[in-house]
Amino acid sequence: MIIVMESKATEADVQYVVKRVEELGLKAHLSKGVERTIIGVIGDERLIQKEQLSLLPYVENVIPILKPYKLASRDFKPLDSVIDVAGVKIGGTEVVVIAGPCSVETEEQVITTAQTVKAAGAKLLRGGAYKPRTSPYSFQGLGEDGLKLLARAREKTGLGIVTEVMESVEVDLVAEYADLVQVGARNMQNTKLLRSLSKVKKPVLLKRNFSATLNEFLMSAEYLLSGGNDQVILCERGIRTFVEYTRNTLDLNVVPAIKQLSHLPIIVDPSHGTGRHDLIIPMSRAAIAAGADGLIVEVHPKPAEAYSDGEQSLTPSAFQQLMKEVKSVAAAIGRTT
Amino acid sequence: MIIVMESKATEADVQYVVKRVEELGLKAHLSKGVERTIIGVIGDERLIQKEQLSLLPYVENVIPILKPYKLASRDFKPLDSVIDVAGVKIGGTEVVVIAGPCSVETEEQVITTAQTVKAAGAKLLRGGAYKPRTSPYSFQGLGEDGLKLLARAREKTGLGIVTEVMESVEVDLVAEYADLVQVGARNMQNTKLLRSLSKVKKPVLLKRNFSATLNEFLMSAEYLLSGGNDQVILCERGIRTFVEYTRNTLDLNVVPAIKQLSHLPIIVDPSHGTGRHDLIIPMSRAAIAAGADGLIVEVHPKPAEAYSDGEQSLTPSAFQQLMKEVKSVAAAIGRTT
Amino acid sequence: MIIVMESKATEADVQYVVKRVEELGLKAHLSKGVERTIIGVIGDERLIQKEQLSLLPYVENVIPILKPYKLASRDFKPLDSVIDVAGVKIGGTEVVVIAGPCSVETEEQVITTAQTVKAAGAKLLRGGAYKPRTSPYSFQGLGEDGLKLLARAREKTGLGIVTEVMESVEVDLVAEYADLVQVGARNMQNTKLLRSLSKVKKPVLLKRNFSATLNEFLMSAEYLLSGGNDQVILCERGIRTFVEYTRNTLDLNVVPAIKQLSHLPIIVDPSHGTGRHDLIIPMSRAAIAAGADGLIVEVHPKPAEAYSDGEQSLTPSAFQQLMKEVKSVAAAIGRTT
Amino acid sequence: MIIVMESKATEADVQYVVKRVEELGLKAHLSKGVERTIIGVIGDERLIQKEQLSLLPYVENVIPILKPYKLASRDFKPLDSVIDVAGVKIGGTEVVVIAGPCSVETEEQVITTAQTVKAAGAKLLRGGAYKPRTSPYSFQGLGEDGLKLLARAREKTGLGIVTEVMESVEVDLVAEYADLVQVGARNMQNTKLLRSLSKVKKPVLLKRNFSATLNEFLMSAEYLLSGGNDQVILCERGIRTFVEYTRNTLDLNVVPAIKQLSHLPIIVDPSHGTGRHDLIIPMSRAAIAAGADGLIVEVHPKPAEAYSDGEQSLTPSAFQQLMKEVKSVAAAIGRTT
Repeated sequence: MIIVMESKATEADVQYVVKRVEELGLKAHLSKGVERTIIGVIGDERLIQKEQLSLLPYVENVIPILKPYKLASRDFKPLDSVIDVAGVKIGGTEVVVIAGPCSVETEEQVITTAQTVKAAGAKLLRGGAYKPRTSPYSFQGLGEDGLKLLARAREKTGLGIVTEVMESVEVDLVAEYADLVQVGARNMQNTKLLRSLSKVKKPVLLKRNFSATLNEFLMSAEYLLSGGNDQVILCERGIRTFVEYTRNTLDLNVVPAIKQLSHLPIIVDPSHGTGRHDLIIPMSRAAIAAGADGLIVEVHPKPAEAYSDGEQSLTPSAFQQLMKEVKSVAAAIGRTT
Repeated sequence: MIIVMESKATEADVQYVVKRVEELGLKAHLSKGVERTIIGVIGDERLIQKEQLSLLPYVENVIPILKPYKLASRDFKPLDSVIDVAGVKIGGTEVVVIAGPCSVETEEQVITTAQTVKAAGAKLLRGGAYKPRTSPYSFQGLGEDGLKLLARAREKTGLGIVTEVMESVEVDLVAEYADLVQVGARNMQNTKLLRSLSKVKKPVLLKRNFSATLNEFLMSAEYLLSGGNDQVILCERGIRTFVEYTRNTLDLNVVPAIKQLSHLPIIVDPSHGTGRHDLIIPMSRAAIAAGADGLIVEVHPKPAEAYSDGEQSLTPSAFQQLMKEVKSVAAAIGRTT
Repeated sequence: MIIVMESKATEADVQYVVKRVEELGLKAHLSKGVERTIIGVIGDERLIQKEQLSLLPYVENVIPILKPYKLASRDFKPLDSVIDVAGVKIGGTEVVVIAGPCSVETEEQVITTAQTVKAAGAKLLRGGAYKPRTSPYSFQGLGEDGLKLLARAREKTGLGIVTEVMESVEVDLVAEYADLVQVGARNMQNTKLLRSLSKVKKPVLLKRNFSATLNEFLMSAEYLLSGGNDQVILCERGIRTFVEYTRNTLDLNVVPAIKQLSHLPIIVDPSHGTGRHDLIIPMSRAAIAAGADGLIVEVHPKPAEAYSDGEQSLTPSAFQQLMKEVKSVAAAIGRTT
Repeated sequence: MIIVMESKATEADVQYVVKRVEELGLKAHLSKGVERTIIGVIGDERLIQKEQLSLLPYVENVIPILKPYKLASRDFKPLDSVIDVAGVKIGGTEVVVIAGPCSVETEEQVITTAQTVKAAGAKLLRGGAYKPRTSPYSFQGLGEDGLKLLARAREKTGLGIVTEVMESVEVDLVAEYADLVQVGARNMQNTKLLRSLSKVKKPVLLKRNFSATLNEFLMSAEYLLSGGNDQVILCERGIRTFVEYTRNTLDLNVVPAIKQLSHLPIIVDPSHGTGRHDLIIPMSRAAIAAGADGLIVEVHPKPAEAYSDGEQSLTPSAFQQLMKEVKSVAAAIGRTT
């Protein structure tokens, strides 16, 4: 932590701040510049609050030096984490595609879709039983019945299941059915949910909130890791910007950025990320080329009749095309599918 | 709803869409333009999904005409709603100031603050017992003990209490203590929490998520209203933009905009909205001048020692100054304090 | 400037950076922390480029300490600058309202509007002769003929003239007619235009680009000041965010923020800032309450027939109402109009 | 154009609007819905202004149906445009890489870089002689001397030259030297510059402003096309968002989106788009995978000593690596390099 003093601060003002730093159990180190004195704070700055220093008299600014997360950082764990989801490894050489409907609607719908995506090369099945919807008048999901239908699809196809949990009280129930428990973008900072999931023996797919900075994203992962669950997979799914053409702005920059900052795997959701079925294939290719460890894609047998998100769902044949193109790009950068 | 056909759509393509509209129980009305045919859909468009039409062949675009919310709209209820919180009316002529610490820390802190803000003219006491924090290593609140301290402050001062609830399972507990139950910005789209609160006989303070559009904000209010709780107060607390100088960008435009779109009262949180104690007073004046029905402001006896949000808390004397300035601006626009 | 070394940097790596700092004519000051060594750079950091240090081996980050602008800063000039525009003082106690049509269209239109806004209390007349338009098919302004009509309106009413210049080659021409030369938001970083204007003996109204940070905004002012023109008035006119309800998001936070950082006056443009005539009056009240030194507002005798920006223009009677309300708010905070 | 009437509009109010539509030379077509009447406007809506209708009494909203651009649209020209730059085709099967220093600094620097990037596979040389800089204290470019050095590099290597023009009065001079004239992001809406360039017989590289929507981007292209220059190449170079990790947020979604909306080629600038040399290679791979027609990349023999933008410049050896990886991804999607 660096404390920048105002230009008008006197020697006594500086000493007052130094004393306060020492009272907090840290050491202070002065650098007197031409226009300003700065005070380097030595010790673990994560243990104190910035305000304890920034609000002292004649302090102009306090600049943190350390990253706020620790367990999620590559400094802490230099080698890539590889997460095992029902036997499928995410974060290794293989690029993993997760596919399935936005919402679980009927037994036929979910089983047909599971069979279709498996045949095309998907390794895990996604499907929502609990749905966070903007409108109270929209379909809110089948709940536990939806989880049962997903389990049936798993029996039939052998595909592991990825599904969302929305509340800490439902964590045990959802974890019983799911192979990979998803935290949706709106819940990325639901700290009670994160704490519950940190106690569960299932891997977690943590989606980035649409207005989360990278620090905030990794701090949410830190909730899981510090609570005891180190089976965390990150997911970029688009951020909110001024751009109106796409539903969100899929931010692929985050893929190589996360690879530098963290050891955790990161996958990409081009369905939510663009909100447009006609952009999913090119952005899936781009995600893999950027270094993503996988994709999570919405597929529906009849998108125009989907209960939710039909505009961003692929038809089965478009999904086959996606798999073909992704396989080719993955090979070009030395990865398998 | 307006369906815009592609320029290459034939008469048969148009008829196919018309047939589908009619199957959905709606009426279609054709307008053949110079470059495109458009189809007006007559009937309650809120009952169907846009995708059911937008994914039909040769449809270029589907444009909703109606607002997605109904009960929250001024069309539905032209007169201003006035919400009674422990005898304090919000949404009427009086501008109401809610003040108190970010977090409840100790009995002395909360009672001293309550007495101070009451003396300065605050009408309700805010204080967090359950705290959503970005870092797992930060103070997370005292929980029910915090609620009890707030209740003690109410006994001593007579001020009604405003405090946040973070999960649907805690709604009953928090509602027992609170006079106004707060939904934090991160939970604005926590639909399970909204549904629980819609069944409770306490007014709700709904904070705008930092990346919510006005439609999304009012749709979250619609969850409360449609579930049976019409005691809803909205709160603007800053949005996330590229601006780095302030923690958030307090968006005062939303105040007169909400007054046009909705009958619900709206207050402003300049503490979170700016994240800087030195901007709170001018932005409070501006909020009232823009037409806000009140303010919610963080006050701490010693901001530099606050467990959370010290940088955006006012000292007691700064709060007195705020009240004086707000009173003057309120009078200038014909409101009382 | 603070150089943060990577955690794996050795003593030799640190010494290499220290040597480079010294070669650049600056002094280095080491602080060895628990996890990292940081190097304080002593001397005027504005004279070197960040990259000269950030790209050295084992440097993790370089953090500037000084603000990038100097002449525009309040540190440099603690007292408020007051700018004289044709006898009207901007930046003093008085709140100054500039009003007039978006575009100069006809002699009758501009003179009628000038008389109307003067009668209502406006102190300066705005009007565009050169118009930057998004579409090549839109009206692009009358050019010099427009300037002549503005001059005629000045003769008739005595109001000083505010008008935009779009290119460095037109600076002399526009400055001949204008009393306050406006740099539009799209040109805030047109450095050739800024350099030309820095040589002119007329005050400049510098509008904030819709995606400019405060540093960038003040750096554009620094172009004018460092080139020799210290008659600069800043203008906030809305930023681009995800919010779709208003054309832009008027960012009033910038008003008290600029007052802290700089000695320059700042006014607010609620017409462009909101893009909606029905939000102009409340946001004008808010701007004054936030501490703005004035307003610039679009007024048109018949907005529905305006050649440009009719949706954000006030009718003459709405402008009278605005002046009445602004006067009242100004008085409430101790300012005159 | 669709006119949505307020729910309280009477038959007479509707007829008043219909009459006005007809006076403007268009036809009106009524659809009476359950809650609202809507009026379809038939005719070329680009010829009238939205405000002429939106400000009429009882009009709630006016929704444009046609895209605002015409010549830039794929509707107008279904086949891809291929632009010839000094014999290099951009927009065809081949992926074209443009490389070189941010600023032209010295003869040796520019010639060495040109030889290096040519050897690695670049097809055109970029280099700035006129530099738009945020700070008046930064290096502003060598001007015409820089253009001469670029011409010398072309003689030595045969590489065509890409360089920026900043003002309409310099268009002829720059066009004399350049093979492809660049409009920088800050000038995307400099309409005078665009008009001058529309009269020149050289292709134009139009960079997207960091806060431009797709409509605005294509409208700037429309200025060039409608003025007579159809040799336009678009370039995505990052947008401004709340994300602080990268200098800008490279928005690759725009690549497939532009391919749908327009026939013009689009290339990507990963140097400005990310602002970080360590993200350039993965984002270059991603850009090509998304369908970009080429890249423009900053390369400097010694980035730490560059006069500008060193942090986002590749070393020659990193550029070789980029070319290798890009070649592989291009091949995977059926394109050559």
